[in-house]
Amino acid sequence: MILGGKHCRTIGLHPDNPRIVQTFDQRVLPHETVLIDLKTSQDAERAIREMWVRGAPLIGATAAFGVYLAGWEAIQMADPKSYLKERFEALANTRPTAVNLIWALNQQRKNLEKNLTGEDLVQAFRVTAESILEEDVAICSQIGDHGLQLIQDIAKKKNGEPVRVLTHCNAGWLACIDWGTATAPIYKAQQQGIPVEVWVDETRPRNQGANLTAFELQQQGVPYQVIIDNTGGHLMQHGQVDLVIVGTDRTTRQGDVANKIGTYLKALAAFDNGIPFYVALPSTTIDWTIRDGIQEIPIEMRSEDEVHWVHGKRTDGKIDKVRVTPEGSRAANYGFDVTPGRLITGLITERGICEASEQGLLKLFPEEV
Amino acid sequence: MILGGKHCRTIGLHPDNPRIVQTFDQRVLPHETVLIDLKTSQDAERAIREMWVRGAPLIGATAAFGVYLAGWEAIQMADPKSYLKERFEALANTRPTAVNLIWALNQQRKNLEKNLTGEDLVQAFRVTAESILEEDVAICSQIGDHGLQLIQDIAKKKNGEPVRVLTHCNAGWLACIDWGTATAPIYKAQQQGIPVEVWVDETRPRNQGANLTAFELQQQGVPYQVIIDNTGGHLMQHGQVDLVIVGTDRTTRQGDVANKIGTYLKALAAFDNGIPFYVALPSTTIDWTIRDGIQEIPIEMRSEDEVHWVHGKRTDGKIDKVRVTPEGSRAANYGFDVTPGRLITGLITERGICEASEQGLLKLFPEEV
Repeated sequence: MILGGKHCRTIGLHPDNPRIVQTFDQRVLPHETVLIDLKTSQDAERAIREMWVRGAPLIGATAAFGVYLAGWEAIQMADPKSYLKERFEALANTRPTAVNLIWALNQQRKNLEKNLTGEDLVQAFRVTAESILEEDVAICSQIGDHGLQLIQDIAKKKNGEPVRVLTHCNAGWLACIDWGTATAPIYKAQQQGIPVEVWVDETRPRNQGANLTAFELQQQGVPYQVIIDNTGGHLMQHGQVDLVIVGTDRTTRQGDVANKIGTYLKALAAFDNGIPFYVALPSTTIDWTIRDGIQEIPIEMRSEDEVHWVHGKRTDGKIDKVRVTPEGSRAANYGFDVTPGRLITGLITERGICEASEQGLLKLFPEEV
Repeated sequence: MILGGKHCRTIGLHPDNPRIVQTFDQRVLPHETVLIDLKTSQDAERAIREMWVRGAPLIGATAAFGVYLAGWEAIQMADPKSYLKERFEALANTRPTAVNLIWALNQQRKNLEKNLTGEDLVQAFRVTAESILEEDVAICSQIGDHGLQLIQDIAKKKNGEPVRVLTHCNAGWLACIDWGTATAPIYKAQQQGIPVEVWVDETRPRNQGANLTAFELQQQGVPYQVIIDNTGGHLMQHGQVDLVIVGTDRTTRQGDVANKIGTYLKALAAFDNGIPFYVALPSTTIDWTIRDGIQEIPIEMRSEDEVHWVHGKRTDGKIDKVRVTPEGSRAANYGFDVTPGRLITGLITERGICEASEQGLLKLFPEEV
């Protein structure tokens, strides 16, 4: 990823001080880029809880580094073991529904069983945190390589005209460590010199598209236009979208996909207009235990305030929020919807692209038969 | 319509002074209700141009009353005829694409051919303006009566449970004189004691749903919940929508409908889930000269700023705006999309309900064969 013209990642050890973890405050994006130092495991806990960091892979990585910081703290404690136990619990409780968070903490927990103490244990925590990073980067890069083929195939038919990709929400490097999932094929195409233009869905109510995806693409120098969430259907009717790529929070055995609310509407429009609709995902998001996503995936109901209030930057430069509904209004705020596999052209995984069906998924993941 | 607990209309003569026209400033809704006095034809001109009033019927009515005010002014002029000519032109140029505006001015222009002068002409202008009002109210009320039957039929199957209607944008009394188009069946149902609940699409980028439809329903005492535009599909998948009713800006001979951007996406979701999708329209919105709405209706491209900036009320009570995209972003802002007739269950007109097809429309409007 490119930030401020420099290649970097969303999280990592401070370049000058390996006892500090560096990430940045995503709450003030895109208006300000604020690097933050996580000096203690409590800092990491707060960064996750208060959403300075967001996106499943980045949350997991932050928790893993939180354990590393807790390792340093434990050395000073009378009872390091019980201190670490308490810190693991605190980190686990920051965002209880985040699957990656628990997975990352479980990776770290294995180090506790190795009979390591003092700095040895701290270094084991560091290596695990860094390998979680490397693994995520590798998976996203592989997703990018597979998705790149789709863009290359479209580019061949366009005689140098840009390939126009529509995306919803932020499944970019801001949610990951590098590359992103839905954005990885776009960045790979850019590296190959293939002209790409991106339609960025604003993604109400939290505006992750307008705030984060737009910011990422701007930093990378990929041309984009922000559109409100209502616009995709019109663009597709008029041949202005060549390809849709979105991310997913949870994928079922039969290829149904739970992603940010509104994804289903775009899939319907793509299907109605014969436009390829792909979902990019690390296989860790596949829940092999469920089939029918509409019936089986519970959809989080979030705070009404996300609908009532819109956050942004005032003309005087202050970050603020404005209310858009009449006082006393009720609002319903569902965080996700489920797109049935029948509307999805294919799933882009780290192992390759498959049909959004049980048969398709099992071809790539035969161990799950 | 009910405003502040009192029955009223969106525009009319001042109750105490018939030389003043009263309407209210829709720019500050829903946060403030500001009645404004239009004392001169220039005031009326400004009210239309600066969008204190919006909605095709209300724009037309405001222009008609602007002519009435110009009539009083003309009496004072050395050359009343050329003064009136200039005022007609100025009013026509306020919103050049508004069909109703031109229609209303043409109604008033007929008075010029009656050889009336002085106060006689003024009173003729007043009567025409008032009859434009009455005609709109009657049409909306008829649309309401026909649409009411749909709600009654659904209510019968729901055993006292509320009928849940989803609507997009504002096709309510704020856009008209009274009743509204898409909202008229809802208000008629309320009068009949049928429990109705409304899902109000926020309707980015100008938020007419969150700002105006929510305000209307609140004033009327109809239960509603505001949802972001991404939510309708999820609600329909889960049986939480019984009926969709929207308005239209332009309807083609074959029943395609141009309405606020995002309408097409809701129609796709309704179709995918077997939910009735109706469009309420006065027959004046039918353009009998065109058939294929997607190919033949030019879609207005509006200012990028409507995407970049969101308007509302700050926590300190000030009306302000906040920017949601990174500085330097481009945005594409299409105002409308076209929903093909094949996705529409029926059209609710002042003459009754028909299929969204040429055959269907001609049954109600045989004079157009």
